[in-house]
Amino acid sequence: MNVDAISAYLCALQDRIVSELERLNGGRFRRDRWERAEGGASPPGGGGGDTRVIEGGGLFERGGVAFSHVRGARLPPSASAVRPELAGRGFEALGVSLVLHPRNPYVPTVHMNVRCFVATREGEAPVFWFGGGMDMTPYYGFEEDCVHFHRACKAALDPFGAELHPRFKRWCDEYFFLKHRNEPRGIGGIFFDDFHEPGFERCFALMQSVGDHFLPAYVPIVERRSALAYGERERDFQAYRRGRYVEFNLVYDRGTLFGLQSGGRTESILMSLPPLVKWRYDWKPEPGSAEERLYQEFLRPRDWV
Amino acid sequence: MNVDAISAYLCALQDRIVSELERLNGGRFRRDRWERAEGGASPPGGGGGDTRVIEGGGLFERGGVAFSHVRGARLPPSASAVRPELAGRGFEALGVSLVLHPRNPYVPTVHMNVRCFVATREGEAPVFWFGGGMDMTPYYGFEEDCVHFHRACKAALDPFGAELHPRFKRWCDEYFFLKHRNEPRGIGGIFFDDFHEPGFERCFALMQSVGDHFLPAYVPIVERRSALAYGERERDFQAYRRGRYVEFNLVYDRGTLFGLQSGGRTESILMSLPPLVKWRYDWKPEPGSAEERLYQEFLRPRDWV
Repeated sequence: MNVDAISAYLCALQDRIVSELERLNGGRFRRDRWERAEGGASPPGGGGGDTRVIEGGGLFERGGVAFSHVRGARLPPSASAVRPELAGRGFEALGVSLVLHPRNPYVPTVHMNVRCFVATREGEAPVFWFGGGMDMTPYYGFEEDCVHFHRACKAALDPFGAELHPRFKRWCDEYFFLKHRNEPRGIGGIFFDDFHEPGFERCFALMQSVGDHFLPAYVPIVERRSALAYGERERDFQAYRRGRYVEFNLVYDRGTLFGLQSGGRTESILMSLPPLVKWRYDWKPEPGSAEERLYQEFLRPRDWV
Repeated sequence: MNVDAISAYLCALQDRIVSELERLNGGRFRRDRWERAEGGASPPGGGGGDTRVIEGGGLFERGGVAFSHVRGARLPPSASAVRPELAGRGFEALGVSLVLHPRNPYVPTVHMNVRCFVATREGEAPVFWFGGGMDMTPYYGFEEDCVHFHRACKAALDPFGAELHPRFKRWCDEYFFLKHRNEPRGIGGIFFDDFHEPGFERCFALMQSVGDHFLPAYVPIVERRSALAYGERERDFQAYRRGRYVEFNLVYDRGTLFGLQSGGRTESILMSLPPLVKWRYDWKPEPGSAEERLYQEFLRPRDWV
């Protein structure tokens, strides 16, 4: 179980993604390295991270690609929910997490995350698991974008067994769901957690495959949509729909809750929140509009592949 | 234990507050009555509410004053957290809840809530408790406004014992606190929950006193600040600070969680969210600015009375 190898992969992945996004964008991500004070947080621990953020860019109104590697004396409850027998163990967690909020409402918001947990206790063998996935949240739906994104997700998993994609696709539909709205967050993708059965090396290889498939899944969609003209109406709908993103991340998202509970770095965790958001009361899209089509044809779990 | 009397008080309070806000504002609240389907929600139950909302008003950019009265077969966990022995009982909950987000950044956002719970089980006496309070969230701090608001809170509680105000004031400071920011939500006020010790009639009288003190606590502040001139800078800071309001309500607020968990009406619960919100990475106010003064002099628990 070589945590250094994971760390090296993740740092290189972050670099690769940031470079490609900068190439697309013409803008620059700022870099913010941070350390987590040993014993200063609750639960106490060390480690740190490297957060790359862009704000006010031409393509991305706000986005971040964050690497973090933290250690703690006690696994927080949100992390051990699926394995209560590990509660209170020491832990090490490392991953790359990204969220991109484009300015153009025709370009979807995207999220990708790959992470590895190791739970330790003196005198016992360490227990590891992997998690992650990617999912897309369009404001205006395009069939071909959804098909493309889901195909890339499938391609990432197929080398590891044909049964994984349907399982992780369904998991994503179930996970990124706003119960209080009875609405999925977006058009899904893949999601997995607590993944350890095939052994450490194979799990690590799967994590790499997911990480490596992010750019081919998303970049062609950005290239296809980022020159489309939009106006105030589309910006307004985007700001309204972004409210759902906030609701999901703050009410349900396990990664966000883990970060906030583990004394994580708030600004890095909440870089997932959109730059400009609107809420309004009991709003409904106009019948027959493109906005209504999003709800009726895209915000429904579908077999896109 | 007369639930009808509470209901009558709450409906009249809602009317009184809405009329006064309309007088101040010159705008009209829309009215949205709703019913909760018996058995349709999880946990199943009936009841309904009357939500009054204003959006795009001259004074209030978004605000709502909601009455609700719901019944359910099983008390949700968020409601029985302080009294685990009541988990799973039938319940009845009624209250008035309001949040007002003014357009002018010099006018503070305000929240008030009064509520009563009754937990029932066949063959046992019903168990009741009251909760509520009010608190204020300024964007720009004015000492005299804070003193005025806290004095009104104290006046609401003093007839019921001098020990209540310090206790409920401290409770408010502790409750409306964003752990992940290490920041209070605003300048506080009063908060109480699980209040039943003095008996039903006295608790109901206290609830009425809190409800009745809302307008005298807030209206003079609105009248004092709503004509102050502001520009883009103040609006921008207001939108940024409103992000904290969203973070608190979605991550910590027990009322919000209770509502979403009890199959409550999402639009009425989330009418507390601001109309226009901004997030940005690791932003700090300029040293010596009015924005920095808010953090240094107002967003600190203080003895304002």
